[in-house]
Amino acid sequence: MKKNENIVWHNNKVSAEDRRRVLGQKGLVVWFTGLSGSGKSTIAVELEKLLNEAGRAVYLLDGDNIRHGINADLGFTDEDRNENIRRISEIAALFCDAGIITLVSFISPFRKMREFARERAGDENFIEVYVSTDFETCRQRDPKGLYQKDISHFTGKDSSYEEPLHPEIVLETVSCDPTQCAEIVREEINRREVESV
Amino acid sequence: MKKNENIVWHNNKVSAEDRRRVLGQKGLVVWFTGLSGSGKSTIAVELEKLLNEAGRAVYLLDGDNIRHGINADLGFTDEDRNENIRRISEIAALFCDAGIITLVSFISPFRKMREFARERAGDENFIEVYVSTDFETCRQRDPKGLYQKDISHFTGKDSSYEEPLHPEIVLETVSCDPTQCAEIVREEINRREVESV
Repeated sequence: MKKNENIVWHNNKVSAEDRRRVLGQKGLVVWFTGLSGSGKSTIAVELEKLLNEAGRAVYLLDGDNIRHGINADLGFTDEDRNENIRRISEIAALFCDAGIITLVSFISPFRKMREFARERAGDENFIEVYVSTDFETCRQRDPKGLYQKDISHFTGKDSSYEEPLHPEIVLETVSCDPTQCAEIVREEINRREVESV
Repeated sequence: MKKNENIVWHNNKVSAEDRRRVLGQKGLVVWFTGLSGSGKSTIAVELEKLLNEAGRAVYLLDGDNIRHGINADLGFTDEDRNENIRRISEIAALFCDAGIITLVSFISPFRKMREFARERAGDENFIEVYVSTDFETCRQRDPKGLYQKDISHFTGKDSSYEEPLHPEIVLETVSCDPTQCAEIVREEINRREVESV
């Protein structure tokens, strides 16, 4: 008998549960939305650090690793912004399936696309965090100098931002510093994990 | 003094090294290439299981989670196949950066695109595995019944497959069963990790 006649071409894939056993945690998508300058990235970076220091497997998807990589072919029209968020949603769902606590920080102005992200990750794995800093405060902070420039399709000016209707968390950065905001989100992550055991 | 005047908007992101400390491993991309029916997915699934059972953080990107998700908008023309592989390359590089041993199983017929994948992950993090089963054997196995159909742009028939020139590993599935093949790749993964300590 030839050797390869023995081959059983089985297909028992590793499950999300198998991965959970290795990582000791459940995959989640924590989706930060808000205007440019609202503070969402600062809070996400702070949260990433808190979780990493606590020994959690965490990864942050933001402009730095998405806009210059997989979405380098996209611009800022409504259509391209939707495609930007569609791809990020799919990537976040993959990371979540891999068992990673996945932090996503993008303006993501349209409700429909944030709902798509939730659907792809699964509602039980999704935490929408609305960083609700008002336009005037964002304009004054303007950490990237964007409000000063004459940019077309700029969210809050000539492109609309649709506030979340039922976010899991609303963060007020005027009364709360980034570490306090990150702690609020961490508590929700811990609560989700305890619930799912 | 108002509370938010204290805010330091720092940006000390968690590094790949920080993630490595948590996961106890280095991120890698293991890229399986070969004809349809060559056995690459069977070997990748086997390897995924071996690594998961050994307590490693591993994730498999293949048709099941990519073609129906992020790349659902793409067809099978050369242009779309290149875009398919471009996006998978970027996703694999993100997973690698996150510290995951990332297995990728796609025909990926074009040398240029596999080189792109290597470049994005970083040469030191990339293992190209050529599953070198010959066309006739693949046609006889035909696990998906694809060779029997009259599919246009079918790799090995009317669409070309460019064999790797310098793959890290060549697997001969005619003389080796999937478990043996997976073990060969696992040894290379272990060797890479020892080297990188």
